[in-house]
Amino acid sequence: MNNKYPSALLENAVNELASLPGVGRKTALRLALHILRRDVPYAESFAKAIVDLRREIKYCRVCHNICDEDICSICANPARDHSLVCVVENIKEVMAIENTGQFRGVYHVLGGIISPMDGIGPSDLQIDSLVERVKTGEVKEVILALSTTMEGDTTNFFIYRKLSPFDVKISVIARGVSIGDEIEYADEVTLGRSILNRTSFNDAIKL
Amino acid sequence: MNNKYPSALLENAVNELASLPGVGRKTALRLALHILRRDVPYAESFAKAIVDLRREIKYCRVCHNICDEDICSICANPARDHSLVCVVENIKEVMAIENTGQFRGVYHVLGGIISPMDGIGPSDLQIDSLVERVKTGEVKEVILALSTTMEGDTTNFFIYRKLSPFDVKISVIARGVSIGDEIEYADEVTLGRSILNRTSFNDAIKL
Repeated sequence: MNNKYPSALLENAVNELASLPGVGRKTALRLALHILRRDVPYAESFAKAIVDLRREIKYCRVCHNICDEDICSICANPARDHSLVCVVENIKEVMAIENTGQFRGVYHVLGGIISPMDGIGPSDLQIDSLVERVKTGEVKEVILALSTTMEGDTTNFFIYRKLSPFDVKISVIARGVSIGDEIEYADEVTLGRSILNRTSFNDAIKL
Repeated sequence: MNNKYPSALLENAVNELASLPGVGRKTALRLALHILRRDVPYAESFAKAIVDLRREIKYCRVCHNICDEDICSICANPARDHSLVCVVENIKEVMAIENTGQFRGVYHVLGGIISPMDGIGPSDLQIDSLVERVKTGEVKEVILALSTTMEGDTTNFFIYRKLSPFDVKISVIARGVSIGDEIEYADEVTLGRSILNRTSFNDAIKL
């Protein structure tokens, strides 16, 4: 569809909105028309939130999670177990794990995952700073909680090799059949892994 | 999901992004993280486009289409037939009809459709200004091109009654089976209407 916009301002706004992931030109036009229907203060506070986010955001000095201070609220919390570090790809995973309410340790946010296809190598990620954290001797266990993809496995192995000289336990989150899933529809690899890594029923009923 | 955001700036941006139609909190978070990965000038030009759109946009004095000047490029074009006015709900329909390349007249943008459920009455729409346009005697035909919904039919009828005292032809766009559609799957109302409003085959092959 060769859209001719009746206004250069509209075309410009549509171009910017369409630069967002998952937003095509048709959706961008719908969003722009929505903004047009609202009042000026709405557009201004919307725009301010975007600019403030990008300009003012800070990254935690310890775990590289995003935050408003120098150190994030998780790292600053003395009630958390600072000897247990969960390595995640991004802040979304931090939020997902925090929402489970099952983890009382701290995090280390890599800021991505090793992916040669996207030109992301180990030096683009916060792996050296993880090694530094482990070097201090404060960390007793590192939990690798990356995606179960080839890129995730590559990154896991890279981190494992980097940390193996140190006296630290390295674990990965359990792979298995999701809770609520039917065995019949579970994929073979997951099902096979869940049988190999079976847990004592005694332990399971305690959860 | 009770999301706890690690940063108030992020939460604020997510709230603003989630205020867009069709954007939930999960999508809003994805968009916010995308903006975080880009550089500051990107966020600034994004925000500027939004504010400029809302602040600077003008509406055409004649047809109420959005534009950057006092009169839109369609109304200002002497090559268009100014005696033929197509009434549409919104600017999206203007763009859709312009994209067909089949219409050489001008438009009248109502800015909505009569919808008591949403609290939109005739006085909220550009109906009086349409009557004024017709009153001048310049308009020979008004084409009603609103949606084929109950709201569209109500609005059509309201405009029809308002314009009936004047010497102007009032038409509606043809309803019928879409091009490329199979008769078997067309709904009964549309099929029935397309039989009642059949056109001469001679006329059809000329298109």
